[in-house]
Amino acid sequence: MSSKVDAKAQKRQKFEAVYGKLRDELLEHFAAQGMPEDAKEWYRRNLDYNVPGGKLNRGLSVVDTVEILKGRTLTEDEYFKAALLGWCVELLQAFFLVSDDMMDQSITRRGQPCYFRLEGVNYNAINDSFMLEMAIYHLVKSHFRAEPYYIHLVELFLETTYQTEMGQLIDLITAPEDHVDLSKFSLKKHQLIVIYKTAYYSFYLPVALAMYMCGIAHTSAGSSGPDAYALAKSILVPLGEYFQVQDDFLDFAGTPEQIGKVGTDIIDNKCSWCVNTALAHATPEQRAVLDASYGRKDAQAEARVKALYEEMGIRKLYEEYEEGAYKRIMGLIETIPEQPTTKPGEVTLKREVFKSFLDKIYKRQK
Amino acid sequence: MSSKVDAKAQKRQKFEAVYGKLRDELLEHFAAQGMPEDAKEWYRRNLDYNVPGGKLNRGLSVVDTVEILKGRTLTEDEYFKAALLGWCVELLQAFFLVSDDMMDQSITRRGQPCYFRLEGVNYNAINDSFMLEMAIYHLVKSHFRAEPYYIHLVELFLETTYQTEMGQLIDLITAPEDHVDLSKFSLKKHQLIVIYKTAYYSFYLPVALAMYMCGIAHTSAGSSGPDAYALAKSILVPLGEYFQVQDDFLDFAGTPEQIGKVGTDIIDNKCSWCVNTALAHATPEQRAVLDASYGRKDAQAEARVKALYEEMGIRKLYEEYEEGAYKRIMGLIETIPEQPTTKPGEVTLKREVFKSFLDKIYKRQK
Repeated sequence: MSSKVDAKAQKRQKFEAVYGKLRDELLEHFAAQGMPEDAKEWYRRNLDYNVPGGKLNRGLSVVDTVEILKGRTLTEDEYFKAALLGWCVELLQAFFLVSDDMMDQSITRRGQPCYFRLEGVNYNAINDSFMLEMAIYHLVKSHFRAEPYYIHLVELFLETTYQTEMGQLIDLITAPEDHVDLSKFSLKKHQLIVIYKTAYYSFYLPVALAMYMCGIAHTSAGSSGPDAYALAKSILVPLGEYFQVQDDFLDFAGTPEQIGKVGTDIIDNKCSWCVNTALAHATPEQRAVLDASYGRKDAQAEARVKALYEEMGIRKLYEEYEEGAYKRIMGLIETIPEQPTTKPGEVTLKREVFKSFLDKIYKRQK
Repeated sequence: MSSKVDAKAQKRQKFEAVYGKLRDELLEHFAAQGMPEDAKEWYRRNLDYNVPGGKLNRGLSVVDTVEILKGRTLTEDEYFKAALLGWCVELLQAFFLVSDDMMDQSITRRGQPCYFRLEGVNYNAINDSFMLEMAIYHLVKSHFRAEPYYIHLVELFLETTYQTEMGQLIDLITAPEDHVDLSKFSLKKHQLIVIYKTAYYSFYLPVALAMYMCGIAHTSAGSSGPDAYALAKSILVPLGEYFQVQDDFLDFAGTPEQIGKVGTDIIDNKCSWCVNTALAHATPEQRAVLDASYGRKDAQAEARVKALYEEMGIRKLYEEYEEGAYKRIMGLIETIPEQPTTKPGEVTLKREVFKSFLDKIYKRQK
């Protein structure tokens, strides 16, 4: 067990070392445009405060996927490029988190004050979040301009960004923190929000980036067999949905020791899997409790909702959901044809990519 | 004169008609993703409130430039595509204005309340501004994916966005509204801010888009003659700088009837050409007046700065600047080789593109 932990920590350290190079590259380019020193230091703080320091699951999964697809240890150059794309996913995430925290007026993030709350930052954080976003395209252009799949990388980041913003829009108008209207909620709406706001950028994006980097082609029209990217998406979107349902459930059922924070979904009127499941099963009396107590800034109201969840057997319903999701996703994974590659050096999709994701999240407690 | 005004109004109307089509295309795509009706209506309002309704100079200049470069009336398809790119510049501008207004906590824009001040919008405007930005790439992809210059369009929008954000960053930290420090100001700093924050997206971007659409190629390495895009940039950046200096001067010297608003640059601690020119010429006594009175929320302090500007002869200095800028830019325009095109249908850069810009802004009073 300890060697497994060590291996994981080593992996992370190697990945983190690439961040320093990319940050310096961004700052050098910035300075080379004639930008003054104080602006450069501002940009440095923006990057260092917001980009590293998370769990890095999304970024690391690009590297992991390239390794699985190639089926061998990466060369130094391959590792750097995979890690660069991984850090671009982390930059995208940083862009979303800095701006989400302003939209939600959050207090802390990753155990420290939200970036916009730093002395002298405030609304400048809006422009700073934009620069995190544009750093992606600068890095991708610098390192992938000559590759035949360059345009696919750019389009993928752009499209995924748009999808995430669509998800954020529905979430914002469905579950505003200061106005409870449970008639807007439903498991269907929850699914839509989760897929657009989380699944595309957290699950499909890293894998598709890795696939492009490995030279996996899109199936041309008229060709037989499903497009490898469509196939990957058809598995990773449900996987991302399952992941977010877990997140929602752990916000309610996880201890602070497990999840590293105190869950506030009920108080914050979040369109969570838990409340949507409760709404789907509620008697008129139970519904009245939810209408009266959900999304209130009031610990007693929160306690009433939690008691109702227990009374309705949310834990059991979640267990059933998890078993169903696991089996369904396993079934999807098995639709992937695993033929031996015909050309030397050719890379094709592998079930292992998806199984490794599913293994990491199945029955997770944190 | 009246027929010139009519022609201008007609041009604008034809351009505005394209907006409706593009808006509908964006909303149809949005709905086709399964987005709910209330989100679609939200997105519609975001687009309609923020995208049309400006002067449309930037967008129209794409169409004008394509017409000049081709030297003939555009086909319906050519017109539509040029207008589409023009509206993408307007979308980019809308993205900047919605977010700038939040960063500056502005009250009105284009004679109506700033978007984020609308009932129920507030911080959601951050995500809404993002969607305006991503709409650009969706439209460009839908209509230009098959063109050989597609990647150039995408890269140009991305790079210009990054440049504008860099300019905004220097501006924000150089001239925060609530902290006056004139030692951070200089004409050099002003130039840097203006070039990055305004000139690239307002002047170079529309012309370069039109050049790509007309099939003007980048000079390949080793080939003779300067790159047409580098040449265009070398003229349009100083032109944009001149335009912004005018804007700064008119904020001080223009009447509300001329400029359609009351100038607030002095009160708002803006890093304007006027204050930077005054600082460059100030005696220690005059400098003390500026240090004590610039950027204060106080009409008497503002009046002292204005009196100082008059005393220092800012009007005269501006006239000299304008004559110098005009001659310098004219000289740059004359470096453009106007050879007859060798291949039929080939389009090359024309002096007229730049002259028409310069004519429109020389000695403008509004």
